[in-house]
Amino acid sequence: GGSASQGEEEFLVPPDNFSMVDKGIYRSGFPKKKNFAFLKKLKLRTVICLVLEEYPEANLQYFKTIGVKLCQFGVVGNKEPFVDIPESVIRNALAVLLDPANHPVLIHCNKGKHRTGCLVGCLRKLQHWSLTAIFDEYRRFSFPKSRFMDQQFIELFNFSEDCSGIDDELR
Amino acid sequence: GGSASQGEEEFLVPPDNFSMVDKGIYRSGFPKKKNFAFLKKLKLRTVICLVLEEYPEANLQYFKTIGVKLCQFGVVGNKEPFVDIPESVIRNALAVLLDPANHPVLIHCNKGKHRTGCLVGCLRKLQHWSLTAIFDEYRRFSFPKSRFMDQQFIELFNFSEDCSGIDDELR
Repeated sequence: GGSASQGEEEFLVPPDNFSMVDKGIYRSGFPKKKNFAFLKKLKLRTVICLVLEEYPEANLQYFKTIGVKLCQFGVVGNKEPFVDIPESVIRNALAVLLDPANHPVLIHCNKGKHRTGCLVGCLRKLQHWSLTAIFDEYRRFSFPKSRFMDQQFIELFNFSEDCSGIDDELR
Repeated sequence: GGSASQGEEEFLVPPDNFSMVDKGIYRSGFPKKKNFAFLKKLKLRTVICLVLEEYPEANLQYFKTIGVKLCQFGVVGNKEPFVDIPESVIRNALAVLLDPANHPVLIHCNKGKHRTGCLVGCLRKLQHWSLTAIFDEYRRFSFPKSRFMDQQFIELFNFSEDCSGIDDELR
């Protein structure tokens, strides 16, 4: 809201690499102050953050204002050799992501490329997308820094047997 | 449905360049037979097709089966010099796209890059996205064949004054 009565259009600035993933699920890079007005329009209930670092105070404050619950599942990227994303953390993030009670939900990491791409890739596996289509989507967002290791992580990812809680809407 | 009782998972194959654009709005390249099972899950009501050529009989048949209305707004791409996308056609396509009675709707052309990118870009303008964010999205799908002319089309596109019919959900 506010003083838009001068007839001036206020532009909305989505976070870098923003996109809708599925009903009630969005993805992006790290949201900054200039993205807040845009985020408000999404009526988010939850933010899933995949970075390890402490969350910026300005974001915490704003999320509090608009009633967003922050769920941080810190992982390091698949960047260094032998540094793997732990499957258990992604499994926990998936549990939050798949619960319709948490929707609309925004997934983000720093660039919205790699860690976010891994989590979305695991969701697509659960939705039975072909690997070709999953990797195509992964690369669309991670270009030109697509990682072999991330795609391998998605391919080999093991769901716990019990993903029965998945909302029918997402199947 | 069918005989999935052998415990075999059937993979779903989204059309090339498939993505969710917004609530009730999807985009992709030209849907082929191998994508039909995936499309069925979207419970589409409408398909907006932006190519000039006659629609394939197999698709027409399938859309009929699943109750999809086809709206064809044929345009030639911005490929040749001096061949412009006519604004009026995009305006008509927008009217169909913005009407919630037509949702869920799939927009497609051949590759899901240029003509689809132009229509989605115009939608984003209507949603007050910054041009930077609009072009970023356009290029994500058109890479490595992004066109100056398409981005200029989006920038200069003139809505008829009356886009008041736009669903509040999409604003």
